[in-house]
Amino acid sequence: MTPNYDASMHSVTFVGGDEGRLEVTGMRTLRGAPLDAVDRVDVRPRLDPAVGVWSLRGVASHARYTVRSERDRLDVVSPPLGRNDALVVVLIPIQKNAAWWSLAQDERREIFEARSQHIHRSLPYLPRVARRLFHARELGEPFDFLTYFELAPEHEPAFDELVSALRETEEWSYVVREVEVRMRRTR
Amino acid sequence: MTPNYDASMHSVTFVGGDEGRLEVTGMRTLRGAPLDAVDRVDVRPRLDPAVGVWSLRGVASHARYTVRSERDRLDVVSPPLGRNDALVVVLIPIQKNAAWWSLAQDERREIFEARSQHIHRSLPYLPRVARRLFHARELGEPFDFLTYFELAPEHEPAFDELVSALRETEEWSYVVREVEVRMRRTR
Repeated sequence: MTPNYDASMHSVTFVGGDEGRLEVTGMRTLRGAPLDAVDRVDVRPRLDPAVGVWSLRGVASHARYTVRSERDRLDVVSPPLGRNDALVVVLIPIQKNAAWWSLAQDERREIFEARSQHIHRSLPYLPRVARRLFHARELGEPFDFLTYFELAPEHEPAFDELVSALRETEEWSYVVREVEVRMRRTR
Repeated sequence: MTPNYDASMHSVTFVGGDEGRLEVTGMRTLRGAPLDAVDRVDVRPRLDPAVGVWSLRGVASHARYTVRSERDRLDVVSPPLGRNDALVVVLIPIQKNAAWWSLAQDERREIFEARSQHIHRSLPYLPRVARRLFHARELGEPFDFLTYFELAPEHEPAFDELVSALRETEEWSYVVREVEVRMRRTR
């Protein structure tokens, strides 16, 4: 089975429609406006113009909050994208509100880790979940981030536990739109 | 005189060529590849495709290093863009190297402010210099940032003093390309 996409890619367009290697198994709107239901998602390793029922663009960039000690711990436990057994793919586009973006760096960091423990909570799950964060806000996209995950089917309950816990944190009180697109690699 | 551009704009394209309200009075390559010489620069409040001799795109975004106490001090002394007497406009596109981008947030912050005093050094000059930082790296642009300044002609010596001091800092050791485009508003 070919990997889902080139793990080295810098930019990406997720195209929701009736084509692509990812079969949508469920879509769920957590907050704000939904995305229209689609059958498949095509992952393109570049920024493409609007196509399909919806298309979401993002770029991988440097980490905005992670400090060195956290980075070192994350690097040890983070699996690569494209593992053969990681048949479940989850895309969670997220938009935060203006109040979040008007905070200073130390205030955002304080909420992100000191009070919400985003990294600390995620670490125990990471050996099972490969992830990549794509930034979209700078591209003028409707969502600020496209969070992307790959995992084996047996680890879906653990993944659900993690995202549920994160959604209860103070950080998530700034989230005004969140949609979860759960998919399965079909070839 | 109309202001140079809409100060509320989020995204911008600087088009170097023979059109536009800004007359180029000097271009200087500090590091790396130069930009081709042009007579005028057109400032467009949107992301436009490549036109002119060169075109540089950027988006205003949230501050990546400024903490609350610094932000509060900056806000007090920062003039708005578009002042009538700020006839001198300076565009300094900057590219940092891969070593910079691979640093963790705390390491970049340490170099940026604790060791290079980027904000501390700039504060005394700010009542005279209006500025905006446009991010370009996430757009796949050749430069990482487009730094943009507006000032009255009598404050050019002070501005030169500031940028010279910053170029001597540890932060600038990560800069691999820097071009200074100095302009004058002509209408």
